[in-house]
Amino acid sequence: MHGIFQNELADVQSRLIGLAENAQSIMDKASRAFLNSDVTLADEALALAGTNETKALDLDELVIKVLSTQSPVARDLRILVSALRMSASLERMGSLSSHIAAIARYRYPGSAIPTSLRQTFEDLARIDLELVGKAITLLQNTDLDLVREIQARDEAVDRLHRKVFDVVLNPEWKENAMYTVDVTLASRYFERFADHVVDISSKVSFLQTGEWHD
Amino acid sequence: MHGIFQNELADVQSRLIGLAENAQSIMDKASRAFLNSDVTLADEALALAGTNETKALDLDELVIKVLSTQSPVARDLRILVSALRMSASLERMGSLSSHIAAIARYRYPGSAIPTSLRQTFEDLARIDLELVGKAITLLQNTDLDLVREIQARDEAVDRLHRKVFDVVLNPEWKENAMYTVDVTLASRYFERFADHVVDISSKVSFLQTGEWHD
Repeated sequence: MHGIFQNELADVQSRLIGLAENAQSIMDKASRAFLNSDVTLADEALALAGTNETKALDLDELVIKVLSTQSPVARDLRILVSALRMSASLERMGSLSSHIAAIARYRYPGSAIPTSLRQTFEDLARIDLELVGKAITLLQNTDLDLVREIQARDEAVDRLHRKVFDVVLNPEWKENAMYTVDVTLASRYFERFADHVVDISSKVSFLQTGEWHD
Repeated sequence: MHGIFQNELADVQSRLIGLAENAQSIMDKASRAFLNSDVTLADEALALAGTNETKALDLDELVIKVLSTQSPVARDLRILVSALRMSASLERMGSLSSHIAAIARYRYPGSAIPTSLRQTFEDLARIDLELVGKAITLLQNTDLDLVREIQARDEAVDRLHRKVFDVVLNPEWKENAMYTVDVTLASRYFERFADHVVDISSKVSFLQTGEWHD
């Protein structure tokens, strides 16, 4: 029985990693679609986000099955409850990325990014991809240094997010309202994506340290 | 043992209702702060959102305790897993409302809403409050008609959200970028708040019908 349970926990773990890899791939396609006005990549991101939802629901069903058949307690129970939370975060990360892809799609063949903010969005995309890469590593091997790195990198995302507003609210900003709307929402999506990576890292950290309220 | 379990389930239910009432109160204060540039109400909303987070964490701890001590299966297990999901939604509803309060605070003593969008935001606030009211009733007494009503009212929120963009992207929109940013984000927060009510209603619906994938 314990052997079966360990196999099931390993299955939960590998599915979480699969979901995280999917979220990474959606963000990779979506951010390139957004930066380069590439509608094919945007469509690929949107399609992948659909499969991500199904995978998250399947993972939830697996967790419910394990809870039901194994009646885990203590740390094993918290691993499974955390898996439900992480699956919800990874699904949202796919959705947030798909919203970025949708903006690229709406504005095609035009660009959703004015020149003055191109570098900022390149940085947001790069750091979000770096963060989800760190989350994948963390799901493979718990490492509290990595948790701290993720939290520090999230602050860089928050700074870039604020920078978008600084640029847009500066009197020198002369772009039309469409650009203002697009960059406001896109920046918010990049920022929320990073927040979810932090949430995931806090759950992993808890499982190591016992500090749940983080 | 079964009697204790029923008491614990009733405790979970009453805490979910408490969280939903809190979310309603935060949105009530935040939307009035936003509509009337009332900084006192904004501060009250922000403070209440903090207590909502703590209450959600306490509810999660209770659910974990019940899972651990009662090892529920079948419908009882799904009720508890749904409670975790609903608690996460209700916490987010508090956060989204507090973001609306924060916009009111930033712009004080000015208003964050131009005249051309005042009615749209009054409608968004009214329907969001109506929706969370329906969620509270639903958590008290499962009623599939109410689930359908919630889903229909959410479509009204989506239409209002799109209307904000129609107004902002119309060539007649002459407001400055600050207004554009504020109404874009506020509209997004009102829309996400309603989405969470729909998610909650889908969970309740599942528990009645067995249809989880909704």
